[in-house]
Amino acid sequence: MKYISILGSTGSIGTQTLDVVREHHNELKVCAITGNNNIDLLEKQIIEFNPELCCVMNEKNALKLKKKIDSSLNSNIKTEIVYGMNGLISAAEYYKSEIIVTAVSGMIGLKPTVAAIKKGKTIALANKETLVTGGEYIMNLAKKYNSLILPVDSEHSAIFQCLMANDNKEINKIVLTASGGPFRGRNLEFLKNVTLEDALKHPNWSMGKKITIDSSTLMNKGLEVIEAKFLFDVQPEQIEVVVHPQSIIHSGIEFCDHSTIAQLGLPDMKVPIQFALFYPNRVKNSYKSLSLFDIGKLTFEKADTNTFKCLRLAFESLKIKGTMPAVLNAANETAVDLFLNKKISFLDIGNINESIMLKHSAVKIDSVETILEVEEWTKRTILEH
Amino acid sequence: MKYISILGSTGSIGTQTLDVVREHHNELKVCAITGNNNIDLLEKQIIEFNPELCCVMNEKNALKLKKKIDSSLNSNIKTEIVYGMNGLISAAEYYKSEIIVTAVSGMIGLKPTVAAIKKGKTIALANKETLVTGGEYIMNLAKKYNSLILPVDSEHSAIFQCLMANDNKEINKIVLTASGGPFRGRNLEFLKNVTLEDALKHPNWSMGKKITIDSSTLMNKGLEVIEAKFLFDVQPEQIEVVVHPQSIIHSGIEFCDHSTIAQLGLPDMKVPIQFALFYPNRVKNSYKSLSLFDIGKLTFEKADTNTFKCLRLAFESLKIKGTMPAVLNAANETAVDLFLNKKISFLDIGNINESIMLKHSAVKIDSVETILEVEEWTKRTILEH
Repeated sequence: MKYISILGSTGSIGTQTLDVVREHHNELKVCAITGNNNIDLLEKQIIEFNPELCCVMNEKNALKLKKKIDSSLNSNIKTEIVYGMNGLISAAEYYKSEIIVTAVSGMIGLKPTVAAIKKGKTIALANKETLVTGGEYIMNLAKKYNSLILPVDSEHSAIFQCLMANDNKEINKIVLTASGGPFRGRNLEFLKNVTLEDALKHPNWSMGKKITIDSSTLMNKGLEVIEAKFLFDVQPEQIEVVVHPQSIIHSGIEFCDHSTIAQLGLPDMKVPIQFALFYPNRVKNSYKSLSLFDIGKLTFEKADTNTFKCLRLAFESLKIKGTMPAVLNAANETAVDLFLNKKISFLDIGNINESIMLKHSAVKIDSVETILEVEEWTKRTILEH
Repeated sequence: MKYISILGSTGSIGTQTLDVVREHHNELKVCAITGNNNIDLLEKQIIEFNPELCCVMNEKNALKLKKKIDSSLNSNIKTEIVYGMNGLISAAEYYKSEIIVTAVSGMIGLKPTVAAIKKGKTIALANKETLVTGGEYIMNLAKKYNSLILPVDSEHSAIFQCLMANDNKEINKIVLTASGGPFRGRNLEFLKNVTLEDALKHPNWSMGKKITIDSSTLMNKGLEVIEAKFLFDVQPEQIEVVVHPQSIIHSGIEFCDHSTIAQLGLPDMKVPIQFALFYPNRVKNSYKSLSLFDIGKLTFEKADTNTFKCLRLAFESLKIKGTMPAVLNAANETAVDLFLNKKISFLDIGNINESIMLKHSAVKIDSVETILEVEEWTKRTILEH
């Protein structure tokens, strides 16, 4: 039996992780879950999975959930309800949990992930911000505490799977595929007028709002480029983004001998989630098989980094190094929030990201505090503007 | 320095193996080469690579070559010239050679490959007939003598590369790709009238005549299905043939968790040859990089086993087991020879293969002699007809 904590159990990756647990209930046990606003779903998850710990970020919501659970007729449930960042960290550090699925979205994932790494736990990494902002610092920390970082993102899981047994083999390039999002092939003139509703329609993957907007600006791919650089220790020039609208080839690696190994499958996040939870084993499941002749055709295009400047900014932030990727990430988090609240236009997202990068002088990261300080500075600078 | 023998050094795989040796002349040394009719090329290869042994199958040609070498002005050349099956076996068993590239085409490859296996040498297997006819018997022999069999065929090399570190992981299916040959999409009516010249035009790979005809009938894919069954120890139902005209995805594996790992590259046999020669390492080379957006599109279709019956017969021979795949192979070798000599029509190839299979009662293979006897029977039966 493998014991796991799920940070962000009510989100898209969180609920799909619970689908995987449901499929393998004899091998996986959920010890801790965490959420924020959706206490109805947390209640249902507590009743079904009976974890020992549940953290609700918001204190008031935590009290509400506690009342609901206390008044429940099910006397088997002994879930302790905690709240706030300390609660989130206690879920990440929970003594029984071997694997921590970091499925919270945003910078909030940084501290609990660092806490879990320091306990030497295995991280099933679904929180992009950890590596985007912490990069080398986090990877060195994981090495120091002997913590294994297993990517959950479909692209990074693909690359990781292709690297198995090809470890220490020289890489020519990482082929990072991108669906291209809902605005693939569109020009700036078109993008001027797109609405929030347009941007929320992703062609292949069903995900949270923030990541769906990031997919439409290609910032999501940019964040993945940054993550890949640190996860797989390559140079930015070795990462080739290939737009592949069908999302069947999840990514691949060209080795130094010009042989490319790629991972393919139907777009289903349960496959990489399960892979991370059972690594290094592969276990059977009831998911759908890929039939290439049913798919018929796979297509590939260059990414248009003139129109979608966020992707270009990601590469630039990597060249500048240090705190620059963290600044880009924080700027983007703020800008997307403004866009989701209809305060700015679609193209403003990239423009804000770019102008903040121009204002920032990058420094080396030597602690989580450095990251949080530049985040704070970035958000304040944008919101004061 | 790795020492190698190349059985069939004047053929397509043989000359490309020498290209790989040329590229890595500091790490690879050719100890023995073999050929048949093309003694001019053998002479050139001797002058360039200075092997210690050269076998010419035909005794008269061997003598001619010996004269040429003896009268050469280059006194450094000390290559011993041998001939016939015994000569071929001595090249396969050559004491210095660690890796034997079995690039001879046809049943003639069986005995020397078995000889090399019995010496515990590593086999870079490019001779299809060894496993098609000997199957389980050969694999068991390799296990017994601790001989490693590394596939050179682009498809089997792809599968082998995908299996690295996924060894002992349960396989759902092998996805074996096929270009579809020059007659992809054609019907029986069209195939009635195709000429030898039409059949010799392969869209993607430049290969010998026999294998080019086998590609046009899909028999080549059928032989690969049989090889894959034995190399990777799967059931015939687990092998899915996918027609993929661009020949970029060289093959792949779907594991039990519905994750597919595939190997991709431009169609260049030097990549799998080099992989086999340097296994388990990957080494740099000057070959071309795959750019998916330059390729633009990959397409996939079901194989038409009604029109191309040879592929269907391969699956059937595997279900019958024992000597049946060897009979199919021998029948096909004879039929293709007749077609190359314009004695029969294109569709006759499949019809002959089918009628011979109907006449044969399969028995278990317990020696090379059993294989050679059914081969003898098959050829006699066809030619007496």
